[in-house]
This record gives sequence, C-alpha cells and structure tokens, in this order.
Amino acid sequence: MLIFGPKLTLIMKLQLSTILATLFISTGTLSAQAQQDSLMMRKIYDEELVNGKCYENLHYLCKNIGGRLSGSANAQKAVEWGKNLMEEYGFDSVYLQPVMVPHWVRGEKEKGSIMVGKSTIPVVIAALGGSIATPANGITAEVVEVHNLGELQALGEARVKGKIVFFNGPFDQRYIETMRAYGSTAAQRSMGPALASKLGAVGAIVRSLTGTLDNYPHTGATNYGASKPIPAAAISTLAANQLSDLLKRNGTTVKFYFKQSCQTLPDILSYNVVGELKGSEHSNKIITVGGHLDSWDLAEGAHDDGTGVVQSAEVLRLLKTIGYKPKNTIRAVFFMNEENGDKGGAKYAELAAANNEEHLAAIETDEGGFTPRGFRFDISEKQLLQIKQNWKALFEPFEADLMVTGGSGTDIEPLRNTRPHVMLIGFQPDSQRYFDFHHTPNDVFENVNKRELELGSAAIASLVYLIDEHGL
Amino acid sequence: MLIFGPKLTLIMKLQLSTILATLFISTGTLSAQAQQDSLMMRKIYDEELVNGKCYENLHYLCKNIGGRLSGSANAQKAVEWGKNLMEEYGFDSVYLQPVMVPHWVRGEKEKGSIMVGKSTIPVVIAALGGSIATPANGITAEVVEVHNLGELQALGEARVKGKIVFFNGPFDQRYIETMRAYGSTAAQRSMGPALASKLGAVGAIVRSLTGTLDNYPHTGATNYGASKPIPAAAISTLAANQLSDLLKRNGTTVKFYFKQSCQTLPDILSYNVVGELKGSEHSNKIITVGGHLDSWDLAEGAHDDGTGVVQSAEVLRLLKTIGYKPKNTIRAVFFMNEENGDKGGAKYAELAAANNEEHLAAIETDEGGFTPRGFRFDISEKQLLQIKQNWKALFEPFEADLMVTGGSGTDIEPLRNTRPHVMLIGFQPDSQRYFDFHHTPNDVFENVNKRELELGSAAIASLVYLIDEHGL
Repeated sequence: MLIFGPKLTLIMKLQLSTILATLFISTGTLSAQAQQDSLMMRKIYDEELVNGKCYENLHYLCKNIGGRLSGSANAQKAVEWGKNLMEEYGFDSVYLQPVMVPHWVRGEKEKGSIMVGKSTIPVVIAALGGSIATPANGITAEVVEVHNLGELQALGEARVKGKIVFFNGPFDQRYIETMRAYGSTAAQRSMGPALASKLGAVGAIVRSLTGTLDNYPHTGATNYGASKPIPAAAISTLAANQLSDLLKRNGTTVKFYFKQSCQTLPDILSYNVVGELKGSEHSNKIITVGGHLDSWDLAEGAHDDGTGVVQSAEVLRLLKTIGYKPKNTIRAVFFMNEENGDKGGAKYAELAAANNEEHLAAIETDEGGFTPRGFRFDISEKQLLQIKQNWKALFEPFEADLMVTGGSGTDIEPLRNTRPHVMLIGFQPDSQRYFDFHHTPNDVFENVNKRELELGSAAIASLVYLIDEHGL
Repeated sequence: MLIFGPKLTLIMKLQLSTILATLFISTGTLSAQAQQDSLMMRKIYDEELVNGKCYENLHYLCKNIGGRLSGSANAQKAVEWGKNLMEEYGFDSVYLQPVMVPHWVRGEKEKGSIMVGKSTIPVVIAALGGSIATPANGITAEVVEVHNLGELQALGEARVKGKIVFFNGPFDQRYIETMRAYGSTAAQRSMGPALASKLGAVGAIVRSLTGTLDNYPHTGATNYGASKPIPAAAISTLAANQLSDLLKRNGTTVKFYFKQSCQTLPDILSYNVVGELKGSEHSNKIITVGGHLDSWDLAEGAHDDGTGVVQSAEVLRLLKTIGYKPKNTIRAVFFMNEENGDKGGAKYAELAAANNEEHLAAIETDEGGFTPRGFRFDISEKQLLQIKQNWKALFEPFEADLMVTGGSGTDIEPLRNTRPHVMLIGFQPDSQRYFDFHHTPNDVFENVNKRELELGSAAIASLVYLIDEHGL
C-alpha cells in the first residue's frame, strides 16, 4: 500500500477545488455571456502561461540593448528593436511617431564624500536627471538637512545660502502601496533642488526614493523650473542615514563633497513605436496599451519599464495568436522619454487629436512586472461600481480583480486634454518590491519573475478583450 | 515658479486618494464596530510596518542557525532560539512540547551523471528526504522515463525491472496558483519511488517540483510505504530536460549514474515551541497561529518556513505591543518536523485533546513570506459568505482580502481529528515565486522581502484580533 500522508491529501483537495474554481464552466452563477468571456480569458491566460514571449523579449531588451535614456544610441536601438519585433509578429500596421526629446548625459561616474575633521568617507551618489555638472573640481560645502520642501522654505535664505541642501525625507512605511510613499516624498527630488537654488544653495543631495535600506543611488528627474540650476544628486539611503547621523553628532563641522560632469545636449529626434491590430468594425476607435521604451542609464530598465513595453506588445500578440478579431483597433505604444521630459506621451496625444482618432481607452503599464493586483480607473466611484459588477468576478479566478478609482499613468495622461472621452486606466501590479529596483543599478532582468510578468500580460489582454467586446 | 509636471500631479492625486482610502474613518459605509476594527487593524499594520521585528528575527534564524532538519544539531539550536525569543518578548507562557522525530541525514554531497556512449555529463541531484543510500560505488542503470504514476503502472514490471525510473512530470503552468501545479505533480516525488520499487526498479530520479528552469535540485520527502526502499533523488529541471532530450535521441544507450550516502538514524527527541498570551476571559479557548521550525538541510529554510515561524511569534508580539488584551488565549506554535514526518503537528493535536483545550481556530503560515493575498478557510461556501460579509471590507485597504474555502496546512490538519470544532485556516501569500526557492539551496534570507514578510505578519495578526473579538 502506498501511504497518502495528510499533506498529500490536502494537496489533492486543493487540486480538486482548482478544477472547480478555475475552469468554472456551467457553475450557474455566471451568465452565458460571462461564461463566454471567462473562456476567452482562460484561452488568453493559457496561451501566455504556456507559450508567452514577453520574458524572452525582455531578456533581449535588457541584455542586448540595456539602459536606453532618451537621446542615447541605445534608445535608438530600442526603437529599431521595437519596430522589428512588432513587424515580426505580423501586426496589421507598425510605424514610428517622430518626436523631439531632451538629451541629457551623465558623463563620468560621480564622486561623493562626507568630510568630518580629517576623515573623508566616500558615499554612493548619482546625478539627478537634468542636473548640471559641478565645477571640474567638484563642490565642497557645509550641509543643511531638511525632510521636505516646507522645512526648507521655513529655514529661509539666511540659513541656506552657500550650503548644500540635504533632502532626507524618508518613505512613510505605513502606506500599503509603496507608490503612495513615493508620491509623498517625490517632491524633494523633482522640485527640491529648484527651491534650494532659489534660497541660494550651491548644491542639493537627495535621499534616494525607496523604503529599503540599500547602497544604491536611485536617480530620477529633477526640474529647475525658473530657478538657476545647481548640481543635484541622489544619495543611497544607507549613506543618507550615515550623513544624517554625522550631522547630528558633528553639526557644522561636517562638509559634503561631490563631483559630477553631466550635461544637457541639444534636443534630438526620437520616436514612439506603434503597432496595431486593425478593428474589423470600427477601425478609427482605438484601445491603446502602452509602456515607455526609454529607461535610466544606470541599469537595464527591466521593471522600469521594459516590462511594460514587452507586456504591451504581448497583449497584441496574444489576441492575434488565439485568433481573436477585434472590433476596434488595438494599439500597442512604446512611448519615448517618460523618464525625463514626457515628450512621447505629449506627442501621442497631439497626434491622436490631429488624426481625429477616437480613443475608447488607454491602459498604461509602468509600475513594474510584478504579480497583477488589478487596475485603476480614472472614473467616478459610481462608474466604478458598474465596472466591478460587470467584470470583477471574471478576474477573481486570476487573482487580478482589484478595481479602484485613481490615476492612470504619465504617458497616457496628456490624452485627457486632447481626447476628453478616453477612459484612462492604470495596470496595477503588486507594489512591494518596485522601489527596491526603481531607477537603480539593480533594475536588471534577473529581478523580474517570468510568471509574474506573464500574468500581467494576460490580465491586460483580458481587459482589452472585455473593453473591445462590450465597451466601457 | 516651480513646475509641477503631469507625473507629480498624478502622484498627488494618488496621495489624496490614499488618505481617503486607507484611513477611511467616518466614510459612512462602515458600522461603528467595523470602524473600531479598522482602527485596530491600522494600529497593527502601523506597528509592524514601522517597528516590525520579524525580518531581523528571520535574519538570525537563517544566518546564525541555518538549515535545521529534524534531529540535527541546528534543529535543537532553533528550538532554543525560539524559546528564548518568545521569553524575551515577555509572553505570558513559553514552553516546549517534547516529540520524537525521524532523524535522516544526507551524508556526502550526491553525485549524478548521464552517460551516453563515451560521454559522461555531470548533473545536479539531491537525495530525497527519507531515501536510502546507493551502494558505495553508486548505481548505474538504463533509464525509463515516465510523467506520472499512471504511466509507470502501465509500463509494468517487464519494462521497469532493473532500471532507474526517471519521473519527468512538469508543472502545469496554466494554474494561476503555483501550489496547485505542485499538487498535481507532487505524487511523483512522494509516492513515485515506492511504486518504482514495487515494479522492480533499482533507483528513482525525480524532476524537481518547480515551474522554473533552473539548475537547483529541489529536495523533499519521499515515502516508501510498504515497498522496499530504493535510492531516490531529485534532479534539477534543466538537467531533467537534458536527460529527456538525450533519451529521445539515444534511447536505451543512455545510462544514469548516481551515488548518495544518506541514511535514517534512530528517532530522536525534539520539541514544538509554544508561546502564549493568556486570554482574559476564556483562557482555555485557544487561537493558534503557527509555522514549522524544521527546514531542509540544503539552505536556510527562509521561505520554508522561517517566514512562517517569525510571523507566528510576531503576531503575539504585535498584539502585546499595541496593548491589546485578548479575550481568548493566543498561541504561537513553532512546529517541529513538518518536512519529513509531521510528528510535531500530530503531537500538538494529541496534547490539545489530552489537555482538553478548546481551539477556536488554528492558522498556519507555510507558503512563504510573500505579499499577502488573504486566507483559505476550511468551511462551507455558505459559512464563507458570512465571513466575507463580516470582514472582507476590513482587509480590502490592506490588499489581503482574498477569502476562499480550501485547505488549511499540514501542521494544523491533525487538529481536525482531535478537536473537531476547530476552524482551520491557511494564510495565503502570493504564490508565484514560492517554487523558485522551495526545498532548494536558494531558499535563503536574501530572497525574502522585508515589507512582504511584514505585511503577512500584520494580516495574520488582524485576523487573530477579529476572531478573538468577534468569534467565527
């Protein structure tokens, strides 16, 4: 006799309940239409989980191209790769949208150190995107620590002038979604250096935007607005803690030194990459799904936003492969320049208006290739209720049924102005690990999980199918 | 003027919706009771996400103790560590439950190779727990490949006798939860070698139970039942594919060689570790939360099940720290010997009956320290509806609101027989990455994410609070 231990009995029970739960045909609780939809979604998921291509596409983008900041040779390679990929998949139409983009270059690897008495402690920094260089010998100055823009404003010019402002606002760990912690501290990076400059600072050092304690600098764009640019860099969270600690113990005897040689070159021509499955009934009605092709130069732009790019192409590949004939035109867009200018998103919205395209919906995937949780819809709570009533049960067996109101995404946001009837939707994966990688040298292919990525592609393809079939 | 780009506007919108969504006080949609519950849950989560201790406890368990298979010196160290930890936290009562456990040892590192013609290709294997050794010189034999027990049975003795059976059943990737793919292939490991032996095989090689293609052997227990033991080992999925490929091309000229020196020593005394917060109203009514302290010897037992252990202690620490006085006794149990005998779980159930303890609920956390999805309840669909109606909305803001019927867990399962009124509950984290690590040399601390682990502790503590406060 073979022995069935309690563990195996348990597994077998799970197994049985799966068959009932995930195939769920003729359960009686779904309408005939919903049953057909659920079968189509099952088809999408099966194709993706068994034959998915997005992971190998991501591998190519990360390993054969790598970091691809706007204006770089790699960005151009990525454009060509994207166009070829979609042409190879045989989409009905593949084309480029020319767009002028900023061209910022980092230059030599940055240097930073804390100086206390006779000690010099090297620390990890990286110039913020858009920052100017320091003088060739670097900058050395006394440090003033603040935790947000309000604190800095309160200090006033007298206590800031001639100093390096050290923005040390930490992530508030109490937020469940890390994106919200990011939202509540991001201003110190995007607007902090401009305010520091206004108050006479000679430089700005910004605590990396992450809840982890690591030794990576997390770069990202800063915006000087009308202020005179001053050199600005991100510092790792571990180094930020060290600096803060030394400041507490040694006060004004602490100085900070940093040197960077980044610069902004003239704007340069680049492209959004667009692929389409033509609608059989309403070819001028568009459902767009997109991510951004550019990425920071420090790594491979895996989660930000290689995953969004390969998922967007995969949505069209999936629908085509299972033989689905869309009523409306389904479009994948690889936006250029999300990281430091948002020019691709703006151009896309401008052309959508110029070409008088009706957009039913635009879905952005730019929060990493993690396990899907669901979607954020830019609609009223009342409209959301209707969507949940129609579709939530369909996504439940796939554990991607979170449906909330809220934002959409940087690249599709400009459509709001030019195509006011568009429904903006953000794909929402699990957020816990995103800021472990975001804008760091650690945003590499190895940190993406194949199944998590594929489940995202299938979830988005399912939503596209439902919108195409039933409208919103 | 500082410029607010679309990205930041978006972030600020997210930010605002957070404040409304996660604090959700006086929204009018929750009853006064539910509002109080939601505030208590917020308190639990805040304490955990800001001051959580489970991650550093896991670090100690993984790095200062490491792998801790039943009967090993490390298992004894882990028992002492667990008892000390809970005593240091000042729980009302901390004690050990003696239990005799199997004592299997791996011996020297295994060797395996595929032989084709004059070529010898080394491959990665690891003995299955409970397996016997090969003869000192190893075993070399022709290979017969099957994909499940049914295929093997159909081959019959004539085609199996004297050979090594190669079980090469892959994970079915179409399951959304990886635990279900595991369930559908696990029998080849747990019962395959016994059946192979019955049909006269001289050894068994089992494809590792994972959906990833990697070069780790995934060990795990096998059970010979009444069959005569034969040597059995897991082979990595990459090596399994290679072996299968060579068999297809070269048929019976392919031989497999493996050598292992594992053995089963006499049973040995070990312990479950128990800590309690005494109930202020019903000290003999128990709510148990537990994971298993033992782990496979190949790595550190991080996700399996160091995370469950530290979460279980953390639940009590959290409730104590926020000053909650439980009505019923809340108990953390570190079960011994889940991996290769289930003796700790059986002993716990036996003692629960002997001491006439009433168990309200038992919650097991043994599916890894990943982002929580929710809980599985071992109840009817009708009862589940009631629980969802009561509590689902409370877990929604924490994204841990999956509530389904289904299994519970190996360690608490025996309670079903001795304490028939107990509600068995399984904590369900996201399952996508679990089998990347499960039973491999890669199940190490570095593969656990701090926030994911902490969110699990907080979710379980919240459920314990709700059960204690309101019953089930």
